[in-house]
Amino acid sequence: MKKMNMVIAQSGGPSMVINESLWGAVSAALTKEASKSIDKILGARHGIAGILKGDYIDLRKVGAKKFEAIAATPSSALGSCRLKPTADDCRKIFESFKKLNVGYFYYIGGNDSADAARIVADEAQKEGYPLVCWHIPKTIDNDLRSCDHTPGFGSAARFVACAIKGDDLDNRALGGVKIDVIMGRDAGFLTAASALARERPDDGPHLIYLPEVPFSEEKFIKDVKAAMKKFGRCVVAVSEGIRGKDGIPIGAKLADGEKDSHGNVQMSGTGALGDALAKLLKAKAGVKRVRADTFGYLQRSFPGVASWQDQWEAKGAGWCAVLGSLHEKNTGVFSGTIGIERKKTKKYGVNFVYHPISDAAKYTRSVPKEFIAKNGHDVTQAFVDYAKPIVGDLPRCEIF
Amino acid sequence: MKKMNMVIAQSGGPSMVINESLWGAVSAALTKEASKSIDKILGARHGIAGILKGDYIDLRKVGAKKFEAIAATPSSALGSCRLKPTADDCRKIFESFKKLNVGYFYYIGGNDSADAARIVADEAQKEGYPLVCWHIPKTIDNDLRSCDHTPGFGSAARFVACAIKGDDLDNRALGGVKIDVIMGRDAGFLTAASALARERPDDGPHLIYLPEVPFSEEKFIKDVKAAMKKFGRCVVAVSEGIRGKDGIPIGAKLADGEKDSHGNVQMSGTGALGDALAKLLKAKAGVKRVRADTFGYLQRSFPGVASWQDQWEAKGAGWCAVLGSLHEKNTGVFSGTIGIERKKTKKYGVNFVYHPISDAAKYTRSVPKEFIAKNGHDVTQAFVDYAKPIVGDLPRCEIF
Repeated sequence: MKKMNMVIAQSGGPSMVINESLWGAVSAALTKEASKSIDKILGARHGIAGILKGDYIDLRKVGAKKFEAIAATPSSALGSCRLKPTADDCRKIFESFKKLNVGYFYYIGGNDSADAARIVADEAQKEGYPLVCWHIPKTIDNDLRSCDHTPGFGSAARFVACAIKGDDLDNRALGGVKIDVIMGRDAGFLTAASALARERPDDGPHLIYLPEVPFSEEKFIKDVKAAMKKFGRCVVAVSEGIRGKDGIPIGAKLADGEKDSHGNVQMSGTGALGDALAKLLKAKAGVKRVRADTFGYLQRSFPGVASWQDQWEAKGAGWCAVLGSLHEKNTGVFSGTIGIERKKTKKYGVNFVYHPISDAAKYTRSVPKEFIAKNGHDVTQAFVDYAKPIVGDLPRCEIF
Repeated sequence: MKKMNMVIAQSGGPSMVINESLWGAVSAALTKEASKSIDKILGARHGIAGILKGDYIDLRKVGAKKFEAIAATPSSALGSCRLKPTADDCRKIFESFKKLNVGYFYYIGGNDSADAARIVADEAQKEGYPLVCWHIPKTIDNDLRSCDHTPGFGSAARFVACAIKGDDLDNRALGGVKIDVIMGRDAGFLTAASALARERPDDGPHLIYLPEVPFSEEKFIKDVKAAMKKFGRCVVAVSEGIRGKDGIPIGAKLADGEKDSHGNVQMSGTGALGDALAKLLKAKAGVKRVRADTFGYLQRSFPGVASWQDQWEAKGAGWCAVLGSLHEKNTGVFSGTIGIERKKTKKYGVNFVYHPISDAAKYTRSVPKEFIAKNGHDVTQAFVDYAKPIVGDLPRCEIF
């Protein structure tokens, strides 16, 4: 079999473990087995944007020691982009791939990135360009339909749980209402992870609002009043993606409406939602001290808090994508994505499985009903049991 | 000498190490030496507010194992308050102290808390109530005039430096301008600490704005344009306390103007300043992607990132306050505060010294001129050398 070169790239929002997936894929490509098929390993800078510009790094020259350190570093070391390729873009990509003798393409990212990889695979089919085209899952939002949970989620959830733990102690000290706005455009998994912060029955978060449950200002005010009465204070975890009965995210209405090429409205990187909710409570819930923080990009980039289980799974997903994609003879287009299945054993464990790329693309997974408490402002024990092994042990916080 | 009881309390904004100071003071009071003078050790809940209500915990009953765990936990375990005592409050305090046989009072907090302790000491003098009344320094703002640096600063600075490290990598991946708003009402030390995040010459923060340098929108826009030209991206660290030529904090103008009993306007717990600066850049600097995060209360409460040097010094300050305050015969009012002096040796070290309480009270220390770069948007190497040993080693972040 003729040896071909490989291109790998990262796309979408960075995570704390996306470089683990990169290193997993590259170290798999460096194995004796893979070296029979794969020659050069090219890292494209800034995803498809870099491929279109021919901006590559020779990843075989990096060295294992440096690569291990990069793997443990948050954010996308190759750079990222949010670009939906057109048919025309794809033709340019294949022209460039042909010149560079590229037969293997791996794209690490979330559902939009999976959709980009799907478009590339479909266009390769149409154009008759033989290509192994695989998506490697990543998203802190945990919303890929092809995964029990997604690499990146566990570490972001660990940051959120730690942050809420500390913030709940701060609220114990000074009282009032504290609102924390947590990432998650459409899915509330990351906001739900705030529940892992609880050690004691009266620990916060006392209220959790997910995008999956229509948000009502009246209910919110009532919930806060009840929590203030019960606990004398209140910590609220609220998703940036909460939406009213009309289905339109409240944060998007407040922000300036900037959109990326996949049509997503910007919601992170602004404190507008938190400030609006704080203002509402001051005016209508009779609470004097209300503060709001928006955790923002720290959730996906803070160094030193990654979950080791998440790191391990992210690396495994990259490794399996490369080795799994070599199982077929490369005569046409061969595409797919790595799914993560939870073992049905009592002890936590995962299997990496293969899915059609469309299983990860475009459409997102929501927090299922069994994870949402009936009162509409909390999660169930089933969610906590689901998330705990992915997030790992948290620092214990002791009080009098 | 007649044995008297001791009251200790925490006040003002919590920190990651204020419980270390509490444990330092309590463990000192439990020594054989101190036990000759001090009998019961009472922890007042929520500072002076708790003393006025008679809300105490018997701290001798907590046990060393649990206390060690509380010491390592962020936030003020006894609860906090922001209360400036009146002469009338003080009379009530002395009545209560007399009933409880209290002769020792320790108050852990920042400059407003030192001022509260000073008022208590002055009123005790006027009322003829014999009292050992000591302030134990704490503030993430690092703005006490009696300390080379203040317990709490090193850990908050460590959070800020880690956060900026991760956020700078995020900005490398996706580009544009990222604004990070950092705590510090009057002093820019914490914002300055963002400079510790830099490992490489092109690492962010690329621009640092302190409250000590009058902020000009025109200069800001010019600075950002120049950074975008030089680095192709820009990370901005900006203090929540930046003010224009009129001396009024810009954030305070944007927020809703809530004030505490010391007359401080609320600036933290809102994203208004970051959002306003982002809007300004989008409109006038021609940058498409601008995001703003406000680090908020995580800076003082996030578990697991405390600097061990800071933890050690916080404990030392509490220990020395109690043991130092027993050196004089307790016949009248004996008040003071613990100062932290940096040793003049090459190897970093500190001495705990005694100061009149007024040295820590009310007035704050600003970032000195030799720490501010001449261009007005950076810090000097002298600041980095000053802050590094207090903050400790940071996680290394590797890139290609």
